[in-house]
Amino acid sequence: MRVLVTGVAGFIGSSLTDRLLSLGHTVVGVDNFSTGQREFLEGAQANANFVLREQDLLNLDALVEAAAGVDLVVHFAANADVRFGPDHPGRDLEQNILVTWNVLEAMRRNGLRRIAFSSTGSVYGEAAVIPTPEDAPFPVQTSLYGASKVSAEGLISAYCESFGFEGYIFRFVSILGERYTHGHVLDFYKKLMADPTRLPVLGNGTQRKSYLYVQDCVDAILCVLENAKDRVNIFNLGTNEYCQVKDSIGWITGHLGVTPQLEFGEGNRGWIGDNPFIFLETKKIRSLGWEPKLTIQQAVIKTVEYLQQNPWVAERR
Amino acid sequence: MRVLVTGVAGFIGSSLTDRLLSLGHTVVGVDNFSTGQREFLEGAQANANFVLREQDLLNLDALVEAAAGVDLVVHFAANADVRFGPDHPGRDLEQNILVTWNVLEAMRRNGLRRIAFSSTGSVYGEAAVIPTPEDAPFPVQTSLYGASKVSAEGLISAYCESFGFEGYIFRFVSILGERYTHGHVLDFYKKLMADPTRLPVLGNGTQRKSYLYVQDCVDAILCVLENAKDRVNIFNLGTNEYCQVKDSIGWITGHLGVTPQLEFGEGNRGWIGDNPFIFLETKKIRSLGWEPKLTIQQAVIKTVEYLQQNPWVAERR
Repeated sequence: MRVLVTGVAGFIGSSLTDRLLSLGHTVVGVDNFSTGQREFLEGAQANANFVLREQDLLNLDALVEAAAGVDLVVHFAANADVRFGPDHPGRDLEQNILVTWNVLEAMRRNGLRRIAFSSTGSVYGEAAVIPTPEDAPFPVQTSLYGASKVSAEGLISAYCESFGFEGYIFRFVSILGERYTHGHVLDFYKKLMADPTRLPVLGNGTQRKSYLYVQDCVDAILCVLENAKDRVNIFNLGTNEYCQVKDSIGWITGHLGVTPQLEFGEGNRGWIGDNPFIFLETKKIRSLGWEPKLTIQQAVIKTVEYLQQNPWVAERR
Repeated sequence: MRVLVTGVAGFIGSSLTDRLLSLGHTVVGVDNFSTGQREFLEGAQANANFVLREQDLLNLDALVEAAAGVDLVVHFAANADVRFGPDHPGRDLEQNILVTWNVLEAMRRNGLRRIAFSSTGSVYGEAAVIPTPEDAPFPVQTSLYGASKVSAEGLISAYCESFGFEGYIFRFVSILGERYTHGHVLDFYKKLMADPTRLPVLGNGTQRKSYLYVQDCVDAILCVLENAKDRVNIFNLGTNEYCQVKDSIGWITGHLGVTPQLEFGEGNRGWIGDNPFIFLETKKIRSLGWEPKLTIQQAVIKTVEYLQQNPWVAERR
């Protein structure tokens, strides 16, 4: 199968690409390297079945060209920054909504039909039902990021209905593991490298969050692509557990062998639009036979090990 | 109060504007007259408290200027065409999503906080629960129009959370009454004027739809603006009843005194993405004390009377 992967140099895009290549598929990878990392493509670029196209997804003509003759589009490029949305309110609109529309148009103009999309548990806002199922009560958006992803989901679903597309929409919890470049584990790791005696924490540490190991995430995506048969297939991806920020801090500091003074902030929100409790119902994906291999604790430690082995990550960002 | 109304020359925008002016408010009206009708502003333009700004909402700078010093923004401009979405898939994106983002940015740059928005019952897709409440199960979008409105709702909600805005989101059923220029009553009326002996119908006539009289709609909007106090206030607007397309045909032909041969299509969908059953739960708006004054039948007949008294509407469109 010939697969177009957008955001191919990203954390999840590159991990999925390596797996697709190892399974014998051909991957056309698109990235503008605004946040993607060239290091993540070193393995792929040694494979004759990989083509890299360095281009911006806002350029529709180039995207139409890249998508020609493809069997599946994996649209994983995005502005994945939840926390700083209010600092640049146009970024989610442009990078997540307009770009998704371009991807859909490039597909339509090429007569393509299958699209996989990286959405987020953030689309549930502050969910009224926890664990939150895919058909939870119609949520009110609390972040520009979540709003932009729910917009993209809506456009994809409408294209499925209007033009006979098949959509696979993944609502991820936060993903951990090799190639992690963004989020609380990196933030804490960098702070502790700079000063292992103290650790300032956004919020009071009681925020409850969910995480999933990147290779479990890739397994789940492939499982859905193989087994889900609806026109619009929406799946939560996460583990059967959640942890508190405090738990995660304990695992990180324990692994690093440091005992910093913890300096908590106030309240159970780290920033405007932060969601104090994210825990997704995952019965639907489990009913397809998938289950995660790593616990959240194991995934956090894998992430710290990756950051230790790849000091450039903490230095660069 | 000084109110900015976008889509001021539209069906609902102009009706609300006349009411606001009659209550002594000042209205700055914006329209690009792509679908707005100058006739609808004749009354407003005779009022010293009305300012018309003929401009396109895609022009952000002009919008920032128009919004200066306003107490409330009523954003009712939209591409309101559900049926022909697939013929020009960029139109909903541009007219409904990008324009809404421009409105939000114009507000933020002016330090404004209150926004009322015309959403639609189409955001529920093919609802799993009927009558459909505001917190119905997370819907899958079935039309580009619905997707664009759910996107706009999400952006507004995120701005409420991020920037302290207060949002009033109205999910309308189809609106009927004076200044109606678009929809099944006009389609049937035009066909019957051309040939009263036969009436081709899209679908088999069993589609169940909901309607609301425009002055009842204006009452509801004002009631919510006065009484709703949440950060994001979402209200279905409709009557406690629905009708079949066949019922509506009976009322129209009965009023016109014609007995056409009815030529039904197949299936209970008139077009791709058509929803065979729309019926919204309206307990929430009723709990504020509002109730509609006209039944669907009365509203349909009011609409036919309006079209008879204003032959230019059927001639123009």
